[in-house]
Amino acid sequence: MQLTLKLKTWEQNLTVQNLTASNLAETETIKDPYNPSPSLTNLLDLTATDMGRINELILKKAHSSVDMIPQLATHLIESGGKRIRPMLTCATARLCAYEGLNHIPLATSIEFLHTATLLHDDVVDESDMRRGKKAARLLWGNQASVLVGDYLLGQSFKIMVGVGSLEALKILSHASAVIAEGEVMQLATAGNPQSSQDEYMEMIDAKTAALFVAAAELGAVVAERPDKERQALKQFGKNLGITFQLIDDALDYHGESASLGKDIGDDFRDGKITLPVILAYQAGTKDEQAFWQRTLGEGTIEPKDLDTAIELINKYNTIQTTIERAHHYGEAAKKALSIFPATPWKHALLDVVEFCVKRGN
Amino acid sequence: MQLTLKLKTWEQNLTVQNLTASNLAETETIKDPYNPSPSLTNLLDLTATDMGRINELILKKAHSSVDMIPQLATHLIESGGKRIRPMLTCATARLCAYEGLNHIPLATSIEFLHTATLLHDDVVDESDMRRGKKAARLLWGNQASVLVGDYLLGQSFKIMVGVGSLEALKILSHASAVIAEGEVMQLATAGNPQSSQDEYMEMIDAKTAALFVAAAELGAVVAERPDKERQALKQFGKNLGITFQLIDDALDYHGESASLGKDIGDDFRDGKITLPVILAYQAGTKDEQAFWQRTLGEGTIEPKDLDTAIELINKYNTIQTTIERAHHYGEAAKKALSIFPATPWKHALLDVVEFCVKRGN
Repeated sequence: MQLTLKLKTWEQNLTVQNLTASNLAETETIKDPYNPSPSLTNLLDLTATDMGRINELILKKAHSSVDMIPQLATHLIESGGKRIRPMLTCATARLCAYEGLNHIPLATSIEFLHTATLLHDDVVDESDMRRGKKAARLLWGNQASVLVGDYLLGQSFKIMVGVGSLEALKILSHASAVIAEGEVMQLATAGNPQSSQDEYMEMIDAKTAALFVAAAELGAVVAERPDKERQALKQFGKNLGITFQLIDDALDYHGESASLGKDIGDDFRDGKITLPVILAYQAGTKDEQAFWQRTLGEGTIEPKDLDTAIELINKYNTIQTTIERAHHYGEAAKKALSIFPATPWKHALLDVVEFCVKRGN
Repeated sequence: MQLTLKLKTWEQNLTVQNLTASNLAETETIKDPYNPSPSLTNLLDLTATDMGRINELILKKAHSSVDMIPQLATHLIESGGKRIRPMLTCATARLCAYEGLNHIPLATSIEFLHTATLLHDDVVDESDMRRGKKAARLLWGNQASVLVGDYLLGQSFKIMVGVGSLEALKILSHASAVIAEGEVMQLATAGNPQSSQDEYMEMIDAKTAALFVAAAELGAVVAERPDKERQALKQFGKNLGITFQLIDDALDYHGESASLGKDIGDDFRDGKITLPVILAYQAGTKDEQAFWQRTLGEGTIEPKDLDTAIELINKYNTIQTTIERAHHYGEAAKKALSIFPATPWKHALLDVVEFCVKRGN
């Protein structure tokens, strides 16, 4: 009750000041000396009850009388993903003092959209591993992965339609189209190490950040909060999503297989053009550029090429540059939350940012 | 105006009689001596203006700043499909005396969902041809076909969300999940010639009829007509969709490549279990069953096997039985329209049924 009261008073203050998204930058931030820790523990604790409900709904909605659908879907769903996206929806809804239960289906819908994307991604990338397990496509085939992905997309929309919020539906349908656009961009730049940093940033903004934006924005929408908070949460989601992807792309060249749930060098073998490569290519000698062209460009990869790629990446320190850029976006994500009062929910969300950034260390 | 007036009077009569969907069968049908012709001409003429608007919207919404998306999407979109599904939405809306323009985006949304399904189908079936042209997957690759299909699915929902009708969204999201279920069913029964007729009927009901149901039902929904008409149009769509698929499956063993837009025997080579095969298997000798098992079951297909398959199908007259069954569903489709007054729209829809049935002759 204390929390709700606090939030309401704070919102009234904002309304009096007639703040809008456009002057968000000038907004007085709320003082909060909290020092985030790189851990999901707080978020996991706070969302435990909600996530229990979401997991139940996920399993229920992955059901179908066609046996292959729940078999394949639950293989992926139960393989221990972190469920950061649905947790974001829960946490942002609660941050916005939402007391209802509509965020449960909304968060489930977000996770279904994500799961569908993973199934299709694995087909497109011909991946063998996902979350440390054999990819579904190796067990049930590419065909089933495409079609079960389509089923989960349909279910995602059905669940969202069930909530009856056109605003939420706008967000979800927009995200699903943008994510697909981002994936096509990735396909189009694959094999072209001359891609620009701008192209890369645009691509990860679409393929990854768009769903973080939707997940976070839904919290404000379900709580029917003013546009200012909605815009702040969108900014939070966008910057967090970019942070997340930058670190993921850095880890592909220097992480440990176990923490990634996939193999080191997968992006290299797939010809994916990520920031560490773009930077190394731009800084490289002619011979080095020819190396990137032969391997990523033409797909002629020999056994020792991954070692060479890592050497070149280390030579130009591009992992460090990528991680620094992730730090920058992480700071922007934290700043976006500055209009919200100091609550355990806000602190848990700040921790998530720290967690995503520190994965790269 | 005459038409609208007529419909209103007729609807009032129905309301007085307190008719509901459950006693639809007992409803007095409206006398209409029209003798349908197996042609799309009437429908094409009547919907010409609307279809012009729809084609414009389709091209507009297939656009994206990511070049590969419109390139691939328009290759399929402009390859001269008959657009029966969006025409159904137009015709049923006008049959229901709708005078607005919301059926334009709804019909576009239906066509996008259909196009997305075709792109994914061609990947799943490894098809080389679609609508008489090279399949998109051969020109842009399987990966792009999967992802552009996802984009079109997202756009389909975005367009539908734009209309702002939760009822319409329920129909579309339900259809998209059911279609995917039907496709998975097809995958699960592939290679099993012992599949039952019931399994087959359930499968085509989901993978094909569900979208015809949605397309036809949307006409009543956009016109805000009573449930009775909505149910009648659902029945119409369902029976028409089943008719359509039965004839398609018959044509795969005896049609002409040009009218199919694909090659004769494609289903056979893909191990697809369709009614002509199920009936031939059930009637067959042990040796004949072993033939089906070797070819469709185990996928060991030799050059002359298609000829043998066609011989066996002819021996048991199963094409004829399939076409007869299509006739039966066609009659049910026509009967479902019997509650609607005699108008050019109704006649054009009756012609569509006749057209679908007669494709098999």
